[in-house]
Amino acid sequence: MQHTPLSVQVTRGGIVESVHSIKAVIVSSTGEVLDSWGDIDSLVYPRSAIKAMQALAFIEMGGAERFAFSEEEIAICCASHNGEPEHVATVQSMLDKLAASETDFECGCHWPMRVEAGYALSGEGKKPNQLHNNCSGKHAGMLGLAKLLGVPSQGYIEIDHPVQQKIAATMAEMCEYDYGSAPWSPDGCSAPTWAMPLTNLGLAFAKFASPENLSAARQKACKTLYDAVVKQPFMAAGTGRYCTDMMRILQQRVFLKVGAEGVYIAAIPELKMAIALKCEDGAVRAAESVMTALLDHVGITSFVADDILQEYRSVTLKNWEQRTTGAIVCQA
Amino acid sequence: MQHTPLSVQVTRGGIVESVHSIKAVIVSSTGEVLDSWGDIDSLVYPRSAIKAMQALAFIEMGGAERFAFSEEEIAICCASHNGEPEHVATVQSMLDKLAASETDFECGCHWPMRVEAGYALSGEGKKPNQLHNNCSGKHAGMLGLAKLLGVPSQGYIEIDHPVQQKIAATMAEMCEYDYGSAPWSPDGCSAPTWAMPLTNLGLAFAKFASPENLSAARQKACKTLYDAVVKQPFMAAGTGRYCTDMMRILQQRVFLKVGAEGVYIAAIPELKMAIALKCEDGAVRAAESVMTALLDHVGITSFVADDILQEYRSVTLKNWEQRTTGAIVCQA
Repeated sequence: MQHTPLSVQVTRGGIVESVHSIKAVIVSSTGEVLDSWGDIDSLVYPRSAIKAMQALAFIEMGGAERFAFSEEEIAICCASHNGEPEHVATVQSMLDKLAASETDFECGCHWPMRVEAGYALSGEGKKPNQLHNNCSGKHAGMLGLAKLLGVPSQGYIEIDHPVQQKIAATMAEMCEYDYGSAPWSPDGCSAPTWAMPLTNLGLAFAKFASPENLSAARQKACKTLYDAVVKQPFMAAGTGRYCTDMMRILQQRVFLKVGAEGVYIAAIPELKMAIALKCEDGAVRAAESVMTALLDHVGITSFVADDILQEYRSVTLKNWEQRTTGAIVCQA
Repeated sequence: MQHTPLSVQVTRGGIVESVHSIKAVIVSSTGEVLDSWGDIDSLVYPRSAIKAMQALAFIEMGGAERFAFSEEEIAICCASHNGEPEHVATVQSMLDKLAASETDFECGCHWPMRVEAGYALSGEGKKPNQLHNNCSGKHAGMLGLAKLLGVPSQGYIEIDHPVQQKIAATMAEMCEYDYGSAPWSPDGCSAPTWAMPLTNLGLAFAKFASPENLSAARQKACKTLYDAVVKQPFMAAGTGRYCTDMMRILQQRVFLKVGAEGVYIAAIPELKMAIALKCEDGAVRAAESVMTALLDHVGITSFVADDILQEYRSVTLKNWEQRTTGAIVCQA
């Protein structure tokens, strides 16, 4: 069914202070649109929500076995991580196994996404390097893919480099979308991000959740990535992050991934479906609120105790002195 | 004239990635609504945009003279400052003059609003205290008001404390709004924030810009606060902040103040008017974009070289490697 966009209200002192509009789609692994809210045909940049698809070619070509990547290392290929010490150490181990170094990365450098990790780093008299970039795990996978393809890694972030061309071809098959004339842009980490309809993004993750109609190699690769992330949810994001917390709560039944500007995807094997959504104004707080509501809507949360999920269904807002000021609630 | 809401587009790779809706009003000092966009009658929390009004009673009662506050110190009473060393030192000086201490504050403690100031603080092995709270200047003014009123400062953030009652009475006169039954909430810093229509918020700042119909004492207080902030714009916000940069560019012709959840006000003496706006989803990036467009709209920016303002009219978005990815543009 087609519905109007979803709405998230941010309240304060009993009235609505701010409001967000969100479009969303639920797609089956056979490509059926089961439910939709808002305009799902206009183009959306998936941003980091698509990272598992960017890692897929590397895994499918046997990258994990070739470089003896651990479950944590496979998981962080799909991550927007917090730059906490465990994340940085994991990516460093991957570089060691790839016989590569931090200077081979082309993702750029930023302070850890988790600001407290930045304060801790600075407190040790250190500054961040490219390992702290929230995309460094993805970029380790891209360096690995260059090796599997037998090409120099230099320029691997450029759209015409064999690494990105291989990734685009794999994504095009999963999303069933032709990127030939699609708008694209360097993402935050300089690798390309291609725009596509939300439905095609959802379709890719429905097939990822339930890959039985894909080739044997791709089925195995999807399962390897899915299992690694849901078993190692800390590597996918980190302390205090919705992806990590919610994947822990949902006990391997759902693969979750955020993307910049309010994108979120959920892949749900036992229902052979995926949820894809985008907050029109880019707010992550609204994307998380709607994701919780839609996970409830499809029934995958029914095994979780209500009191655990209540804090995600109605997020309590507190000020610096821990006084309650309002809430974030999806109006679904 | 009444218009539909303003729209801000955030683009990436040539298409719109995210979009914001903003309501705004331009009000004259005599209360005439000169122009409006969107629903200006629903209630809005002004948040920190109203800080000059919260400081008004203290200044009007002679607080600046009594405690020999400098121009910088008067300015920071109206600030949401970055917590940079200059801000912290200024507030410490105010506490010294008030014979008060950091523990008298009831605003709570947070890491500096400017994250780089937090890294620097941590690099020195320090943690933030209440002086770093972006509202600490306002709270110094509130401690001063308690002294002027001859009441103990303890509990000065509570809605029924004489300090907040005096502030509410002054704001009610300036906004011409009865807060008796208005929704309210503790703000981020625990002092109350009362909701009101956007027009009443704009009216207060139009009268602040052009106070000739107010009492002599209030006229003088408005002028004292206006002059201090526009002459010391660094104290109002800090490095890299729109308020500070734009007040410098506009050379004392406009008083600007941001509030949380996408609120902005501008007071413009030579036009005897004010602009008040609120981004419906709370995004500051959109509020800033619309403020630039409306400052252009009223003609107050015509003396500024086009190339200086162009970067505010169309904000270029760059990634971690400084590659251009898109822009933020108001569709006014």
